[in-house]
Amino acid sequence: MQLATYVCITVDLALAVFEEPAVYPLPFLATSIVEVFCLLAFFARLVHFSKVTPRNVFWKDTKNICVMVTILLNLIDLIIYGCLSIAHIQSIRWSRVLRPIYLVNFAESRQIRRAFRSIRNTLPEIFYVFLLFMFNVLIFSLMAHKLFGNRKLKTAEGEDYFENYLDAVFNLYVLVTTANSPDVMMPAYDYSWGYSIFFIAYIILNTYIFMSVFLAVVYNNYRKHLKNEIRKLAYMKRRKMAEAFNALKVKEGPDFVVTEATWTKLVKLVAPDISNSHRELLLRVSKEENQRWVGKEAFIRLADLLNIKVITMKARKHPIECWMPHLYKSAASRFIRQVVHHKGFVYAYDVIILVNAIFIGLDDRNPQISNAEWVFLSLYVIEILLKLYTYDPRNFFAKNQFWNWFDTFIIIAALVATVVNTGLKSGSQYNSQQILDVVFILRVLRLIRIIDSIKRFRVIVNTLINILPSMLTFCGIILVIYYVFAIIGMEIFKHKIRFFPENSTDPFALGCGTQTLMESAFAKNKYCKNNFNNIGYTFIVLAELTVVNQWHIIATGFSLVTHPAAKLYFMAFHVVIVIMVIK
Amino acid sequence: MQLATYVCITVDLALAVFEEPAVYPLPFLATSIVEVFCLLAFFARLVHFSKVTPRNVFWKDTKNICVMVTILLNLIDLIIYGCLSIAHIQSIRWSRVLRPIYLVNFAESRQIRRAFRSIRNTLPEIFYVFLLFMFNVLIFSLMAHKLFGNRKLKTAEGEDYFENYLDAVFNLYVLVTTANSPDVMMPAYDYSWGYSIFFIAYIILNTYIFMSVFLAVVYNNYRKHLKNEIRKLAYMKRRKMAEAFNALKVKEGPDFVVTEATWTKLVKLVAPDISNSHRELLLRVSKEENQRWVGKEAFIRLADLLNIKVITMKARKHPIECWMPHLYKSAASRFIRQVVHHKGFVYAYDVIILVNAIFIGLDDRNPQISNAEWVFLSLYVIEILLKLYTYDPRNFFAKNQFWNWFDTFIIIAALVATVVNTGLKSGSQYNSQQILDVVFILRVLRLIRIIDSIKRFRVIVNTLINILPSMLTFCGIILVIYYVFAIIGMEIFKHKIRFFPENSTDPFALGCGTQTLMESAFAKNKYCKNNFNNIGYTFIVLAELTVVNQWHIIATGFSLVTHPAAKLYFMAFHVVIVIMVIK
Ligand code: NA
Repeated sequence: MQLATYVCITVDLALAVFEEPAVYPLPFLATSIVEVFCLLAFFARLVHFSKVTPRNVFWKDTKNICVMVTILLNLIDLIIYGCLSIAHIQSIRWSRVLRPIYLVNFAESRQIRRAFRSIRNTLPEIFYVFLLFMFNVLIFSLMAHKLFGNRKLKTAEGEDYFENYLDAVFNLYVLVTTANSPDVMMPAYDYSWGYSIFFIAYIILNTYIFMSVFLAVVYNNYRKHLKNEIRKLAYMKRRKMAEAFNALKVKEGPDFVVTEATWTKLVKLVAPDISNSHRELLLRVSKEENQRWVGKEAFIRLADLLNIKVITMKARKHPIECWMPHLYKSAASRFIRQVVHHKGFVYAYDVIILVNAIFIGLDDRNPQISNAEWVFLSLYVIEILLKLYTYDPRNFFAKNQFWNWFDTFIIIAALVATVVNTGLKSGSQYNSQQILDVVFILRVLRLIRIIDSIKRFRVIVNTLINILPSMLTFCGIILVIYYVFAIIGMEIFKHKIRFFPENSTDPFALGCGTQTLMESAFAKNKYCKNNFNNIGYTFIVLAELTVVNQWHIIATGFSLVTHPAAKLYFMAFHVVIVIMVIK
Repeated sequence: MQLATYVCITVDLALAVFEEPAVYPLPFLATSIVEVFCLLAFFARLVHFSKVTPRNVFWKDTKNICVMVTILLNLIDLIIYGCLSIAHIQSIRWSRVLRPIYLVNFAESRQIRRAFRSIRNTLPEIFYVFLLFMFNVLIFSLMAHKLFGNRKLKTAEGEDYFENYLDAVFNLYVLVTTANSPDVMMPAYDYSWGYSIFFIAYIILNTYIFMSVFLAVVYNNYRKHLKNEIRKLAYMKRRKMAEAFNALKVKEGPDFVVTEATWTKLVKLVAPDISNSHRELLLRVSKEENQRWVGKEAFIRLADLLNIKVITMKARKHPIECWMPHLYKSAASRFIRQVVHHKGFVYAYDVIILVNAIFIGLDDRNPQISNAEWVFLSLYVIEILLKLYTYDPRNFFAKNQFWNWFDTFIIIAALVATVVNTGLKSGSQYNSQQILDVVFILRVLRLIRIIDSIKRFRVIVNTLINILPSMLTFCGIILVIYYVFAIIGMEIFKHKIRFFPENSTDPFALGCGTQTLMESAFAKNKYCKNNFNNIGYTFIVLAELTVVNQWHIIATGFSLVTHPAAKLYFMAFHVVIVIMVIK
């Protein structure tokens, strides 16, 4: 059920790949049938929810209402668009923007929802800081416009310098992101060095000091809300456990208690997976020595106790030892295992990796070096086999053995890719560049293994791996924002800018297909492939905008081929991303 | 004494303005005489220190040793340089780099010293993260070099694309700072869209994830050291107070105590400024009711108690009321004061500011609008006078009345500048642009006052004002780093790049004075004024490098006119600044 929902969400989001402007175009009928199917699935899921939850709880939950309204809107949009397209009237599939709501609002993505809620809570305070900030930008723009606007200065590209107030506002907004520093300063600075003070003061105030204030506001707010939320959760848990206690309690002397038998039955019911010994342990923690009951406080603690993972470490026998004990315990076998356990084994492989690095640095078109690759590959395979022989494979591939997983994956992938590549080469003299690239990247990634040999580095990498889960939530949020902006961006900017390969004969190839851009910075920087012509390109443009650098050139390019107001789309995206990143 | 030291430090640092490459050139003899004078002053300060501190304390203090060695090195350098310049041999005044040591190591700049110490403590851990980071950059550069190097791709400027390994390292290092995104990606992306994954993965890993790890490491370390330092300080304080207690104690029943009389005498001695009632209050807090002595714990708390500022609020009479009570209490006078106290007064001036904003937005070459300026100016002056009449001037200019100070300063400055400007205009038909600019900026700054009328904004501005003290320490540190890098940068790059005004006839004016730069991005962006030809220009270049954007163009420009290794100077500056900003 849960898996089916995720598949439907993925399919629904992925429809953007096939809808106009498409990576792989499909007729409207095909995509709309798939979409209706997804909507039905979401509806079925809702119906199922409403069956298993009490009526008033179901109708009070904004999540469910939200999904319901979205399904309805999606259907209406689909019908209107379908009817209009039959009548050959071009219209917009506006409701596609709402699709990420399914991702956010189904019960499985609790982390993402919590992050969005915390952002919504911070918004009012952020809004006032933002207002003050915009006021500041407007005032400084007025100053810049009046100070530099009638000096007849020109930018390095020969354009007017602060002669138009709205352009001044845009330029100074871009300067906050530092993307046009120091270019925007140079004409005034060349005119008189004192004007540099204006720009430096502006950057210090608006980029650095305002960012500090922004961060301080967000951080304080975030802490406050997090504390509230945790306190509320803890309170809810406690109250529920107290209710359970009241239902099960019996009188024992002056106090009410839960008997040992009831307690055991309860734990068997709510946590059927835990072993008898584990339950015994929990009971001994909960009750007093020599008593046969559990007090109220200890009972309430049960919820926390059941959250604790009790790790069972078993001294397990190696599978080969079980199957062939005689062979595994022979002198030769013991010697091999001692070698693998020895420090020298690790050092030897460090040396091999270093030699490998030198070989990679050398020219790889030399056939002898190509053959050396086979030697290295077999050495690495032998290493993994020896380790599997020495350590229990179940321990070797334990969850926390990041490097073992990494090694094995890289080596097997390299083995497969190299074999495929060799097969292709010998078979048809055809040498696929993609596979060669993959083989090469895998070969270099192997070198990363050396990090694990240096203790200091291992600590840092572990810090890095610990950060990963919170990164995943972040990726979910980014995906939602990207998707919404991608759909809007594609509707506004699709096919406005086109990319032509190097040898194109189009007269406007250098202007990305339009006369307007021929002399623009956008075309001069060869940004034509930064367009909104399908969702793949769009996501890459959004990634570039997230990095912030040169975003003003992209924004100006698209505003030249549409309307100056198009810059607002890019500014909005920047504001949203900054708020996200600050979180 | 303290002031004299500060003046000498400022003069010593300011010598860079007059030394080659100078803003205002002075002969070597003049600057060296001033420098010797400063060194003598520092030495005298040291001698004074050694007189007032015990011998072993003085010689154990690294600060003093540090200053002594620096004075010696400065003198040696001065003598060598002087001798060589008499013999007409060009040499380098290398010891100028050491001048900021005086700023850091005289006792007054404790905050800056603490910050530097905390940075030094973090360095080992930062170093390992940095090493891992550089390893990462080198591996990715190898990949990029091998993947793209032999595709014969060209950048938008027609240069080779990843064909040289060291260039690849530099390009990918710049990409970490995002300064050449997305330009560095475009050729590979145009060739095949899959390569964009390489660059996006690189930025995510090296810019975002590594920055998080960096921050985590620094933050943990910083907290640890701060805690240690505070604990040490608290311990020292406690120990000293305990010693004092032991010296003063008398037996009282089973315990040792300090008598009320001794306590009062002590407080009078160590804090002669506090009033009798304040001391009474402290005593009542320290001792038990009905006792005439102070216990050990309460005695030790005294140090903290004396740190607490007890603010005395007096209902003072307005000075005019003292001088002319009859006039001040008259009906008309009372009415005026009631008007000023009224909310409408604030609203009326908010409206005036808004009208003023509209007038500023209109064309200011219109003489009528010019005259309106006089009206506004007199309205603002009247506002300040009325407020001074209503509120006590001593309260109006209290320390925490930021906006009153701001208003008065802006209005008086505007008044002076406008009068000077009018005088110049009517006197000689000469219209100084600088003064006009100043008048205009002051006029716009007045508008900022509207912020104070909106409560939400006032809160934000107060946050901002609270951050200021920590900003000052930060400025001190930045000054030290800038100075060191400025001196080094001037020695390496002085006069390599020159700026020519718009109408210059120099054949290489477009190439900043050299053939080498004629086709470079540095010259095309008109960066010629970004040079190291005097300390003013140098500081502005360093400010631009701090902003990071386009720093690779500046670095490449200077490496073209000197040596590729010059890029190391700019990379070093970036690394140092990043470490600073993270703090
Ligand atoms: Na940038």
